Amino acid sequence: MTESKLNIGVLVSGSGSNLQAIMDRCADGTIPGQVVVVISNKHGVLALDRARKGGIPTMVVDHDRYAGREAFEMALADVLEQHAVELICLAGFMRILSHWFVRRFSGRVLNIHPALLPAFPGLNVQKRAIEAGVRFSGATVHFVDDGVDTGPVVIQAVVAVLPDDDSQTLSARILAQEHRIYSQAIRWYAQKRLRMVNGKVLLETRDGSEDNLSGEGGDKAWIYPPLS
Amino acid sequence: MTESKLNIGVLVSGSGSNLQAIMDRCADGTIPGQVVVVISNKHGVLALDRARKGGIPTMVVDHDRYAGREAFEMALADVLEQHAVELICLAGFMRILSHWFVRRFSGRVLNIHPALLPAFPGLNVQKRAIEAGVRFSGATVHFVDDGVDTGPVVIQAVVAVLPDDDSQTLSARILAQEHRIYSQAIRWYAQKRLRMVNGKVLLETRDGSEDNLSGEGGDKAWIYPPLS
Repeated sequence: MTESKLNIGVLVSGSGSNLQAIMDRCADGTIPGQVVVVISNKHGVLALDRARKGGIPTMVVDHDRYAGREAFEMALADVLEQHAVELICLAGFMRILSHWFVRRFSGRVLNIHPALLPAFPGLNVQKRAIEAGVRFSGATVHFVDDGVDTGPVVIQAVVAVLPDDDSQTLSARILAQEHRIYSQAIRWYAQKRLRMVNGKVLLETRDGSEDNLSGEGGDKAWIYPPLS
Repeated sequence: MTESKLNIGVLVSGSGSNLQAIMDRCADGTIPGQVVVVISNKHGVLALDRARKGGIPTMVVDHDRYAGREAFEMALADVLEQHAVELICLAGFMRILSHWFVRRFSGRVLNIHPALLPAFPGLNVQKRAIEAGVRFSGATVHFVDDGVDTGPVVIQAVVAVLPDDDSQTLSARILAQEHRIYSQAIRWYAQKRLRMVNGKVLLETRDGSEDNLSGEGGDKAWIYPPLS
């Protein structure tokens, strides 16, 4: 008996390193799912190359080619539904989704943001964190609602902001954690342990993981809920 | 040769548990300083009892007895200067300080806030954190400027927000860390390792403290910069 795999659609606008992490975790079985389509709103971005190399169908839905946001989003929705996408993952997707789109796919859209939301929503996040002098930042996976980076939080990872950090070093430290927690959230969703109900996150975690301080490449982070 | 001790004035409005922690750390020598006056803007608060039990002069400057904020703050400033206060620590002090006051004591006023600023400034902090569904919260010590909880950050502690938390349990977990990091910041200041220059924090930390995950009473927290 084969477990049915979750159909994942990933929306991108840029390099797609989170896309790569999701593809890798699908390939090694950590996520019981498959990326069935990668949609970019821009031509020529690295994320599309990554998808093609992974043998994943790609589509460009160029927002400049549509009369307005509604038409653009209807095109997006059509592509997603044609590919029977069950979960939409925003991975560096730089368009704000309307109330209409979010309602249509309610509880089925995840986003990753490189800060400890509600701190530093929006753009230029790491630069703003460094300028604010905060001692910690991190990453947040959340369900998407029709605000900007406001939906309910699934999982967060904390990293220290070090005295010598600039935007690039801090971004790299956070990005390593983004890859881990985004894959974890998608794994939970694919395992049907994660859903959004009435704007709240319901998550079945497994207990017993007391020490959730962990990291890669010497960069420690504190993740909650613990990876499982 | 005796090291000269920093004269600390503490402003309170309530129970004064942070005041108690500061008094205790002065008494055991962790902070090379002494609380020379405790000022409350309200009569009958527990913080005043704590101060009296510790043999520390107390003063009530009741904001209701003054015509306006300016007069109130001039009275505050007079008391602080009469006691030769070098560092002002806000510890649950529920009045917002004006530009005038902050300028007069620029770089000499610290505050503790029960959240990871810039997330959740203002009031009802833990309740708002729980309602927002964040996975981490914490505490922040910062220099005071004339915004509400906006001054530059000295030290932060992170705690996990647990699934069963309510405002009280989360407040207690954060409060244990407030006592630790506030004392640490005051210690640094008293040791002349901490100051504010052009709105930025300059802090001489001691290196080599790699693992800064620590806690009391089973509640782990991640503190940065590490205690030293």
